[in-house]
Amino acid sequence: MGRWEPNSHGRLQRAALELYAEHGFEATTAAQIAARAGLSERTFYRHFADKREVLFGGTDALAARLVAAVAGAPASEGVTVVARRAAVAAAEFIGAAPREMVRDRRDVIATSPELRERDLAKVALVATALAAALAERGASEALALVAADVVVSVLRVGLDQWLASPASSLPQAVRAVWDEVRPSLG
Amino acid sequence: MGRWEPNSHGRLQRAALELYAEHGFEATTAAQIAARAGLSERTFYRHFADKREVLFGGTDALAARLVAAVAGAPASEGVTVVARRAAVAAAEFIGAAPREMVRDRRDVIATSPELRERDLAKVALVATALAAALAERGASEALALVAADVVVSVLRVGLDQWLASPASSLPQAVRAVWDEVRPSLG
Repeated sequence: MGRWEPNSHGRLQRAALELYAEHGFEATTAAQIAARAGLSERTFYRHFADKREVLFGGTDALAARLVAAVAGAPASEGVTVVARRAAVAAAEFIGAAPREMVRDRRDVIATSPELRERDLAKVALVATALAAALAERGASEALALVAADVVVSVLRVGLDQWLASPASSLPQAVRAVWDEVRPSLG
Repeated sequence: MGRWEPNSHGRLQRAALELYAEHGFEATTAAQIAARAGLSERTFYRHFADKREVLFGGTDALAARLVAAVAGAPASEGVTVVARRAAVAAAEFIGAAPREMVRDRRDVIATSPELRERDLAKVALVATALAAALAERGASEALALVAADVVVSVLRVGLDQWLASPASSLPQAVRAVWDEVRPSLG
């Protein structure tokens, strides 16, 4: 995903997600994506290694954002407060893209077992990076791993709620889910 | 997985996991598994659709066990207490198999991106079933989903701790992780 800008990268992303949503991921070609974006196929391959990269290319940047949120949190804050910061930072990152793109991405992934499994693997990588950052701050390994999984879980639930009811921003939706579930988990 | 018994099914499972651990998942054939178990290849295919089924065939039974634990919990119990019951029930289910089999299974899955992705997908199915059972008891959708992810997360952490230090049983390890992380999550 990544902060969305209407440059070549962003135009290609949007065109790809539209085409995946309209015709399916398998049936869409890089040439079609480039054509819809008004760019050349060569330009597509300068930005993305392949069609799947459009869906998952933002994973490293998302993980880096979460890790930065943890590293930048005041030293006095406990794990739960820091984890909430990470969830909100991720929501800001993902929510910077237009809602239609976020929705198309989710829906396209849901159509294919292979893409779903790949998505789960990418999310697991993000959780592992976040857990390492939380452990770096002194959380026990167990707490760091579980708290990271909670962040990912809240993010997913918040994302679905946000896509279902567009009244609020994604960060607002994620904050709301976090504050709803937190008291019941402890 | 499933409650391990030294019958044909259990002998084939143990033989398969040993061979996967020794020679790799890809390099192992159904014929080799059957031979090590002292059974025919035809018997292997009566018990398992394919090699992968040895690793993931227990998923439905595990999900059923979690759902039953939730359904059987006293109506007065809150979500966290019920979720802990589910985690312990899952640990009893998985921990009924010999430790070497549980360890071989985990290690074999870790060797292959494809098996890891498949495992994540199966675990996601278990979490979804558990979330539905928690929602059935009155938890909000958001809380049910996050609590189910916490159960899965604690189970995974407890499993790794149990395999690393065999002093306790898997249910004991899972209880210990749960009781360690719970106060910090709320």
